[in-house]
Amino acid sequence: MRVALAQINTTVGDIWGNAERVSSALERALEGGAEIVAFPELALTGYPPEDLLLRPGFVRDNLAALEEVASRVPEGVVAAVGFVDLESDLYNACAVVSGGRVLHRYHKRYLPNYGVFDENRYFREGKGAPVLRLDGTLAGISVCEDIWYPGGPAREQALAGASVLLNISASPYHRRKGALRERMLAVRASDYGCYVLFCNLVGGQDELVFDGHSLVFDPEGRLLARARQFEEDMLFVDLYPEEALVQRLHESRPRKEELEDEPEVVEVPGFRERREPAQSREPRVETLLPEEGEVLEALVLGLRDYFRKNGFSRAVLGLSGGIDSSLTAAIAARALGPENVTGVLMPSRYTSEASNADARAVAKNLGIDVRVIPIGPAFDAYRQMLEEVFRGLPEDVTEENIQARIRGNIVMALSNKFGWIALSTGNKSEMSVGYSTLYGDMAGGFSVLKDVPKTLVYRVARHLNRSEGREVIPESVLTKEPSAELRPGQRDVDSLPPYEVLDPILEAYIEDDKGVGEIVAMGFEEEDVRRVVRMVDRAEYKRRQAPVGIKVTTRAFGRDRRMPITNRYSEGRPGIR
Amino acid sequence: MRVALAQINTTVGDIWGNAERVSSALERALEGGAEIVAFPELALTGYPPEDLLLRPGFVRDNLAALEEVASRVPEGVVAAVGFVDLESDLYNACAVVSGGRVLHRYHKRYLPNYGVFDENRYFREGKGAPVLRLDGTLAGISVCEDIWYPGGPAREQALAGASVLLNISASPYHRRKGALRERMLAVRASDYGCYVLFCNLVGGQDELVFDGHSLVFDPEGRLLARARQFEEDMLFVDLYPEEALVQRLHESRPRKEELEDEPEVVEVPGFRERREPAQSREPRVETLLPEEGEVLEALVLGLRDYFRKNGFSRAVLGLSGGIDSSLTAAIAARALGPENVTGVLMPSRYTSEASNADARAVAKNLGIDVRVIPIGPAFDAYRQMLEEVFRGLPEDVTEENIQARIRGNIVMALSNKFGWIALSTGNKSEMSVGYSTLYGDMAGGFSVLKDVPKTLVYRVARHLNRSEGREVIPESVLTKEPSAELRPGQRDVDSLPPYEVLDPILEAYIEDDKGVGEIVAMGFEEEDVRRVVRMVDRAEYKRRQAPVGIKVTTRAFGRDRRMPITNRYSEGRPGIR
Repeated sequence: MRVALAQINTTVGDIWGNAERVSSALERALEGGAEIVAFPELALTGYPPEDLLLRPGFVRDNLAALEEVASRVPEGVVAAVGFVDLESDLYNACAVVSGGRVLHRYHKRYLPNYGVFDENRYFREGKGAPVLRLDGTLAGISVCEDIWYPGGPAREQALAGASVLLNISASPYHRRKGALRERMLAVRASDYGCYVLFCNLVGGQDELVFDGHSLVFDPEGRLLARARQFEEDMLFVDLYPEEALVQRLHESRPRKEELEDEPEVVEVPGFRERREPAQSREPRVETLLPEEGEVLEALVLGLRDYFRKNGFSRAVLGLSGGIDSSLTAAIAARALGPENVTGVLMPSRYTSEASNADARAVAKNLGIDVRVIPIGPAFDAYRQMLEEVFRGLPEDVTEENIQARIRGNIVMALSNKFGWIALSTGNKSEMSVGYSTLYGDMAGGFSVLKDVPKTLVYRVARHLNRSEGREVIPESVLTKEPSAELRPGQRDVDSLPPYEVLDPILEAYIEDDKGVGEIVAMGFEEEDVRRVVRMVDRAEYKRRQAPVGIKVTTRAFGRDRRMPITNRYSEGRPGIR
Repeated sequence: MRVALAQINTTVGDIWGNAERVSSALERALEGGAEIVAFPELALTGYPPEDLLLRPGFVRDNLAALEEVASRVPEGVVAAVGFVDLESDLYNACAVVSGGRVLHRYHKRYLPNYGVFDENRYFREGKGAPVLRLDGTLAGISVCEDIWYPGGPAREQALAGASVLLNISASPYHRRKGALRERMLAVRASDYGCYVLFCNLVGGQDELVFDGHSLVFDPEGRLLARARQFEEDMLFVDLYPEEALVQRLHESRPRKEELEDEPEVVEVPGFRERREPAQSREPRVETLLPEEGEVLEALVLGLRDYFRKNGFSRAVLGLSGGIDSSLTAAIAARALGPENVTGVLMPSRYTSEASNADARAVAKNLGIDVRVIPIGPAFDAYRQMLEEVFRGLPEDVTEENIQARIRGNIVMALSNKFGWIALSTGNKSEMSVGYSTLYGDMAGGFSVLKDVPKTLVYRVARHLNRSEGREVIPESVLTKEPSAELRPGQRDVDSLPPYEVLDPILEAYIEDDKGVGEIVAMGFEEEDVRRVVRMVDRAEYKRRQAPVGIKVTTRAFGRDRRMPITNRYSEGRPGIR
């Protein structure tokens, strides 16, 4: 029995474009001899459609697209297509399609509503655990979150005799998630004695990147096939359902369990099981990327899709000669082509010659367009304009911010004049503690490194150099001391703990929700921890106005971590009992 | 039986401050002879606590605060206090407290997860519909959303014999919501033949304003008492539970219904019912504000609380002589005191003398501080800096945006130097269609009119003049044609339909999720509708970077309307099938 997992890149809202993508993948799957073809969760609407789901016209269009797709599925073939179903309420659904008809509409039972997910906002929970009768073989269908519940529909389907469990997903990437998924799916396969097939979405959608990485496990939980990460792919696999039977005869656990309800059986007319496929093919197992490679590919795909899906092709960004803008430029050049990237050097009186040289070197290595616009004239103008109001007051962060904002304005002026998207270049460590200027370095339509901690920025940059086999980002950029260069002799460590200390504190506080006491117990200075926690809490208003950026950690700012701005609870503020 | 509804203003995260506020209100209620005292939903944590709930330390602190509050409630008195309960999971809960002890922990059953609400993200649903035995009277308790369900716990409690239904709420304001609540609660009272007591939160929290407006209805559904809107208040009411019995003898509906489960009865030891209160008092019914007055008070309270709860006292904003900045200044002056507001005139070559005069007149009428900083020098500097890059290209919106961003930078420089919060002045109509400059007029820490459509801005401004009994906002500001004054002769109507046409289209599309066809059927030009819809969809990336502002409509941008930026679905884009 030949299965094809169609790991496609859909776009939210582009219902007819998605339907075309589904149809053409279906054609390729059929040409490859597939009898079962799976598409990602909500393939027709894209994921996550958010409040578009509250528009009746949108839901109706998706139902019409499903009919059109269904008409292309011949008899003898089953396709599983994610869509939004409307009965008396909305469901996140999977259509079972064969012979030109929708045979069954499975409704997702477990609706995730944590992290980046809001499915309880839109959908009603489904019921039941139907199995498809494919000639002599029973197959179970489920949607994404369903398979994460050990007692969910997959268990019921296995106990009802299914030997194949197909799960269609839109599971977003964060670092180390791929390994977690593989471990969980392997255990589901061996617990239930079934083939487990996981077909995931791929592509960028605002802050989310779906990593593809579709998988097939055999009934003993061994990895049979793995699709590419961060690319469209079509994964063919030949299944031998008798292997599931063999596994069951050896594995007594399912025998000791009882099903509460008899599951619904969906007959698939005209499906003829072949014991052996016409030409058996070796399943393909793609090599996993290392962690830095995953992050790099996530950033490249996230950036490329943000531009493409919004109808833009060119980027502009400030180049300072620092690591963040250098890596952002390199990612933009890889995602869009170097001919589509403009770097702007905007030196001030505090910019060192070394910084200018580094910025030029990066641009040269990447082959991108460079412009140089010194910010002195505007800075002088602002000083003159503010002279009377600021008379007698010392210089402070105000003057630093003015410089950063002049740079932001220049980048935005280029963006406005030429129709380019401005990229902001800040990293997650800065964003976390608010070490950044609102409307200055935070200005832009898209933020590439927003969720990448500074220490990981370095690791990804070195990986990029290795993977290119040359020094794209010069060693001097990788080794010099971080500085904003907004006043003489400024260094990041004058305002922040060193990044090797800062980043683990941030991870503990932001990603793991640890308290001050717990973080101190990890071996950090209490003063450092309190200071960092206070800074993170106070920077919430800034982060709210940051451009969207790509999620790569377990808790990105934005829809993933939802904190009040007005918030008097802070373990970092002494004096609050 | 004397009840006090303690309509207090809590702060998210300020657990011990909230506990103190609860305790001091309790004291005043006891002095007033109350035997039942109710506090708002989640009074101890503030509402909505969002992801603070994911920190175990936060939940533990709230439980400790509950114990402290409980110790202050004497025997013979019952208090209902909102808090977060932790058993095997989290619950949005109401503690029934008497004689120094927590007698019962009611768990909210209906968790709202639409609009601004995300309660499924944090809480497990409760079970049951307990009634308290208060000597001879049974009383039911529920939390907010519970009472909006006709078949919810209040129904069960009424069928179980309760004659008093107490609901503690954190129900946020939007225009016309007060009338909706009054109607619904009146019907609950007469349907069930019970007193209905609704104790609501008051105060601003980021984009939400809770309007107080606590209510009491008698068993025939007549309004007995109404607390103040948009202010702290303590509403005393004397109940005569026999009236509920009389109502039941006259009303046969409850007799025809059957309870599925016997409700749990919570005994309240030491409670002695008095047939007549010591000194009976006439219930107080506050007059309802007109719609413009409600909106004005919501904006004043929202602004005042944002400043106060974040520890700020002074505001700065650009004054253009237009209606939006004039009304924003007037609201800031009312909320913070005129001595705490600085208006900045930032004229350009395109600014008319009339605009400068109007801006000065507004500042004078309000008695606020004024600064004048012409933006010419910076504009010249930017032109010079960009001359080479822009050579040969015509002027366009880029140059307009540069001027707006210079103003944004100046306001932010004053904010940075003096520690003032910058107010942005855009209205909802502009924000909807993206007729605004990111980092320019959209710059600031807080946006007062972000959710107020332009036509409502005018109505509120006229109401403000009426309520002050003088022309705070000059007639010339109210009647002149809207213009951004960023190029010679510019008028809003050159870029947008007139606001009398634009606003109803926006309301239909944004608040009511109507499609193009439906909006055209309301009587608008198809071309206008398509253009507006397209502009709204395309401005999503801008709105994401706007400061928080106060919700006054049914669907404010932000957590209330969650739209993808990357969104290929648009009824406004022809060519997409």
